[in-house]
Amino acid sequence: MQGIQSWGDTLRLLVELSATAAFALSGLMEAARKKLDIVGICVVAFLAAFGGGTLRDLLLDQRPFFWVQHVEVLWGVLGLCALAVLFLRHRHFELTEKAIQWPDALGLGLFTATGVHHALGALMPAVVAVLMGLVTGVFGGVLRDMVCNEIPTAFRDHQPYAVCAFAGGWVYVGLWQADAPGWVALVACVVVTAGLRGLALWRNWALPAWRA
Amino acid sequence: MQGIQSWGDTLRLLVELSATAAFALSGLMEAARKKLDIVGICVVAFLAAFGGGTLRDLLLDQRPFFWVQHVEVLWGVLGLCALAVLFLRHRHFELTEKAIQWPDALGLGLFTATGVHHALGALMPAVVAVLMGLVTGVFGGVLRDMVCNEIPTAFRDHQPYAVCAFAGGWVYVGLWQADAPGWVALVACVVVTAGLRGLALWRNWALPAWRA
Amino acid sequence: MQGIQSWGDTLRLLVELSATAAFALSGLMEAARKKLDIVGICVVAFLAAFGGGTLRDLLLDQRPFFWVQHVEVLWGVLGLCALAVLFLRHRHFELTEKAIQWPDALGLGLFTATGVHHALGALMPAVVAVLMGLVTGVFGGVLRDMVCNEIPTAFRDHQPYAVCAFAGGWVYVGLWQADAPGWVALVACVVVTAGLRGLALWRNWALPAWRA
Repeated sequence: MQGIQSWGDTLRLLVELSATAAFALSGLMEAARKKLDIVGICVVAFLAAFGGGTLRDLLLDQRPFFWVQHVEVLWGVLGLCALAVLFLRHRHFELTEKAIQWPDALGLGLFTATGVHHALGALMPAVVAVLMGLVTGVFGGVLRDMVCNEIPTAFRDHQPYAVCAFAGGWVYVGLWQADAPGWVALVACVVVTAGLRGLALWRNWALPAWRA
Repeated sequence: MQGIQSWGDTLRLLVELSATAAFALSGLMEAARKKLDIVGICVVAFLAAFGGGTLRDLLLDQRPFFWVQHVEVLWGVLGLCALAVLFLRHRHFELTEKAIQWPDALGLGLFTATGVHHALGALMPAVVAVLMGLVTGVFGGVLRDMVCNEIPTAFRDHQPYAVCAFAGGWVYVGLWQADAPGWVALVACVVVTAGLRGLALWRNWALPAWRA
Repeated sequence: MQGIQSWGDTLRLLVELSATAAFALSGLMEAARKKLDIVGICVVAFLAAFGGGTLRDLLLDQRPFFWVQHVEVLWGVLGLCALAVLFLRHRHFELTEKAIQWPDALGLGLFTATGVHHALGALMPAVVAVLMGLVTGVFGGVLRDMVCNEIPTAFRDHQPYAVCAFAGGWVYVGLWQADAPGWVALVACVVVTAGLRGLALWRNWALPAWRA
């Protein structure tokens, strides 16, 4: 039993780290495309990786932030940026983007679940908890794009991204209200969110467009 | 007396709801012009309607936010966005913009008064209270424009907008310091702010330009 | 001794005021270049001068803000904006930019030291304290550029700016951990940050560029 527990913890840690790295890489590549310098690259990677959770904690008035409690993630992002500047080239970008789609989908699910979990713990109403899940999962990318002077991709590419997190968030809230164990709600939220996102990527789903 | 009181409450609720709807609609139309998808439309409408008050509460460190205490407004904005996507067309935009100018002017006054009121309640100095009124009334639009990758209209169109809220804010503070009843300060602030804004719209007032 | 103390205080106040004015002027000129109106000019000047410290206090959850405790600085920035609109012309800009480089470098050092100091006082880990120093010194300019719809200069001009603050911040933390007196850490941080910035300006240092 002990073994399964610690195996689960290790798995979760691995998923979390690869998801955070995927988010940071997305920031890093956008910064590179905009020809930012090393300072800009680090800031945008940091915003993409931790901006969503930080904004959620600001809104919920919770401290310490994740990256204050675990300062090693700051060094991790810095190291990732240093490695990227040394080894990543523009011709690798398309490949990298493909490669991070899956950890990114997992990360979206995991970050959403974390956000809903924190908000429910702060006694927020259901719809606000789902919103906080969305903020955690999606607003890192939004801040990344705003700093890079772009309209956020999540708001204009007509691909289901926030919508998947929205669905997953409600799954979490529903299971929580049905008194399901925490890990069931967590796993269900990640599976639904990442699953929908994966399906959307695979089947090329598009959100209905605004008619002129 | 009871009747007048409840009549006043109903009136205030009506003004508040139509003002919030006007702010949300302004966000919605800007999002549509930028061809955002449904996620972007909802976020920008939400930011335009509640961004100013939320930023004020963040700065004053006050919780819960308005939209946490009244989650039905979240559903209201979502519903408005859904209706707009179904029924609003680009050719209706000019008409809608004309139609929302007046509830928007009322909203500017009301939001400013609310901001000043909250800041005075948090024991802020007079000039900071006026500033918080400005933030509440104006920064929803500022955040809306920043997300849409525009320089905020309020900062560049040379039309008196924030300036009206600035004047109205001082009226509130002055009456409050003269120990006038709360509703007098509120009504005077709304009348001055919305009145000046209305005059500015009607007479086409412009702020003095920066000389080259 | 008393005399030296008060002489030091006066000097520090002078440095602080000229640094704040330099930051505000940088905002003012960017606003003028973007042809913002008087409202935009005041907001951008305010953001450039106080945005970094305000963001730091939001992240550290500290109140009151500097400009709430010292409301006279609000009037100062307003007065500076009024004077600038009356007397500054576009042809003066290049000269003004040269003239503010040195108080700006001093300000970068001083703001960084203040940020590190606040963060250490709030019991933050060393790397977070340095980060808060960076936020205080650099993010006023970042917010200024974001409102003006530009990619922040600090992230793309390949000039050492945040990097100088990063070095200075570590000097502060190192001396503080070695139990040096507070004023030694402060002065050393300012000297290292402003000195490196001055050297970078003088020798035209550039950050290594991202290779394609």
